[in-house]
Amino acid sequence: MSEGTPPQRGFTRGEFEHRLERAQAAMARDEMDALVVTAPPNVRYFSGFATQFWESPTRPWFLVIPREGCVIAVIPEIGAPGMALTWVDDIRTWPAPVPEDDGLSLLGGVLEDLPRRFGRIGWEMGREHVIRMPIKDFDTLRSQVSGLEFVDGSPTIWSLRMVKSPAEVAHIRHICQIASGAFERLIDEVVIGDTELDASRKIRIELMKGGADLVPFAATISGPGGYDQIIVGPTERVLGDGDVLFIDLGALYDGYSCDFDRNYAIGSIRDDVARAHEAVWQATEAGIAAARPGATTTDLWRAMARVLEDAGSRGLNVGRMGHGLGMQLTEPPSNTPDDGTELVPGMVMTIEPGMEFTPGRMLVHEENVVITEDGCELLTRRAPREMWRIG
Amino acid sequence: MSEGTPPQRGFTRGEFEHRLERAQAAMARDEMDALVVTAPPNVRYFSGFATQFWESPTRPWFLVIPREGCVIAVIPEIGAPGMALTWVDDIRTWPAPVPEDDGLSLLGGVLEDLPRRFGRIGWEMGREHVIRMPIKDFDTLRSQVSGLEFVDGSPTIWSLRMVKSPAEVAHIRHICQIASGAFERLIDEVVIGDTELDASRKIRIELMKGGADLVPFAATISGPGGYDQIIVGPTERVLGDGDVLFIDLGALYDGYSCDFDRNYAIGSIRDDVARAHEAVWQATEAGIAAARPGATTTDLWRAMARVLEDAGSRGLNVGRMGHGLGMQLTEPPSNTPDDGTELVPGMVMTIEPGMEFTPGRMLVHEENVVITEDGCELLTRRAPREMWRIG
Repeated sequence: MSEGTPPQRGFTRGEFEHRLERAQAAMARDEMDALVVTAPPNVRYFSGFATQFWESPTRPWFLVIPREGCVIAVIPEIGAPGMALTWVDDIRTWPAPVPEDDGLSLLGGVLEDLPRRFGRIGWEMGREHVIRMPIKDFDTLRSQVSGLEFVDGSPTIWSLRMVKSPAEVAHIRHICQIASGAFERLIDEVVIGDTELDASRKIRIELMKGGADLVPFAATISGPGGYDQIIVGPTERVLGDGDVLFIDLGALYDGYSCDFDRNYAIGSIRDDVARAHEAVWQATEAGIAAARPGATTTDLWRAMARVLEDAGSRGLNVGRMGHGLGMQLTEPPSNTPDDGTELVPGMVMTIEPGMEFTPGRMLVHEENVVITEDGCELLTRRAPREMWRIG
Repeated sequence: MSEGTPPQRGFTRGEFEHRLERAQAAMARDEMDALVVTAPPNVRYFSGFATQFWESPTRPWFLVIPREGCVIAVIPEIGAPGMALTWVDDIRTWPAPVPEDDGLSLLGGVLEDLPRRFGRIGWEMGREHVIRMPIKDFDTLRSQVSGLEFVDGSPTIWSLRMVKSPAEVAHIRHICQIASGAFERLIDEVVIGDTELDASRKIRIELMKGGADLVPFAATISGPGGYDQIIVGPTERVLGDGDVLFIDLGALYDGYSCDFDRNYAIGSIRDDVARAHEAVWQATEAGIAAARPGATTTDLWRAMARVLEDAGSRGLNVGRMGHGLGMQLTEPPSNTPDDGTELVPGMVMTIEPGMEFTPGRMLVHEENVVITEDGCELLTRRAPREMWRIG
């Protein structure tokens, strides 16, 4: 059940040094004296610190990436032994939780002491970012740290994370292969009469057996001849003849995610479903063919939209046809009519066309690719042109 | 493998009406014209909207709970069909993602139109809360919505969520029973020579088989005769004779979490480990005995600390000895020397004593209880006084 040799867990010290170098070059360009990150993927990206403890919202964690010098971790005491295992040497702790001062004065002191050139500190203030601390505390901090402006560091951070290293791509490729195998084996596991919840449990078990670490996302949805949405489910709905079962997976290997879906025909396939499946499959082909350096996310969107329109698409409520992928299920950029981000080698993208083909019924398709020097490499095992059948 | 009849999924309309009534009474008390919530558990608490799609950080979601009248959902178009299945009737959407205006003008309009009495809107600005939207957008909104002050609504929200309804307690009891069974079966699944990652996969599979929906948290840590931290792991470390294996679980049933741990002796048990286990087991007994209406979280802390001090505890880096539990793995209040929150019936708490018993080696124990009219009910199946043995 193994999907090839798993890539080594974690990253070399050289990889972290390279991430820091890129970040410091970007800070010089974007005129910041430091970046402060609080969100789990950003903390992990720059430190290598891996924990599931982020599920507890009680304590904030801070990583300060100065324009010069080493990364500084400003974290709750509970995390010190774990952070000591990473490449980060400068670790400052406080005995959290202390709601009246959860790291604020400690972090404020670190920021005050930074060498200043631009007087600006970048925070996760913008696009597809959340600052993981009470905003009341953030307001206090920015009013108290004198002479330092807090600015949006999101474009800086995304400019770094959007382009993956070969080691990162190997991680994503591995989880895509694990999920591909789980999807294939599911054909023999799910039976007519199962509920969506049963199907969801079965794919989660197959993912675990295949080597996934955890499965934050396994949307499992069904409907007669298609579905009307792709984010709410599984429910106790029972799978019956003529249904389409849709599963969209975000499983993790060592902190990196896949994000792709598969459609299963339960029993018989309606003609309009088969035609819609052919359309989204062909649109995916067009998206993959368009994915190459120099093309833009808008080119990707157009390549897919053309096929869907020709097939009579009535549109879609999803808002885009794919996006970046990495440590998170979805990352910038977005494949939309006006996103216009230029693709460069190392960007990992989902190719995700979908269409409402009759009122209230849609099909969505998805594969994951990495942009290479002269095109793209498919990271998932391509879904078959004809829908898989169960029962 | 079933752990009793699962409670019905979802909640009655009556339950949501009651939540809204309590919220509106709290808003009158705390002088707010509305609460705006963005965090997944808060959106789900007031609407019943359940999705794993929160894993995608791309789109913000807003739920406006006015001081009078019905809940208003201001959400991305992709969520409209799912939100229509809940008790929320007033659903406003925009075609997200639109980074330049992701719901801001739509939400601003809703807030401007609210009947005003206090001129204050409560947001998730404080303790154990994160506002799930770009803070740049939050800053824009609070500068543009004229005559309305954005204030910290966290104490208001926690005053509601901290006390669980009988239906909520039934959910937590069920997932605690599922996890208790998975922990028990693990004794026969893990073998000497397994890695921490193997053990973690095995407990996840047992949880799925037992009826858990998903497992956001399964910290899996081991060490010779104890461990030095409880949040970083699993790793590829191989389990050998004399090790202690520690697993801390946050699994979900229909949106509600358990949070408790178990310790397994791998092969032989060192004498100092057996003594430390007796101490944390007895401290847990003391914590459970102290958990009753009218006692405070500080009383709980003291009851446990006394037993641990007598046993020669060298302290702990965890910062508290238990906390609230509900939709999230950890919720307010905290069992600390000075938290002082009074326990009332319906509060679900973890009883979580731990101690460093020799330099660099600790043991942590944990059970979950709900405060009743005259004491507390144990929701987990009590860990045995003698450590479980593997191999």
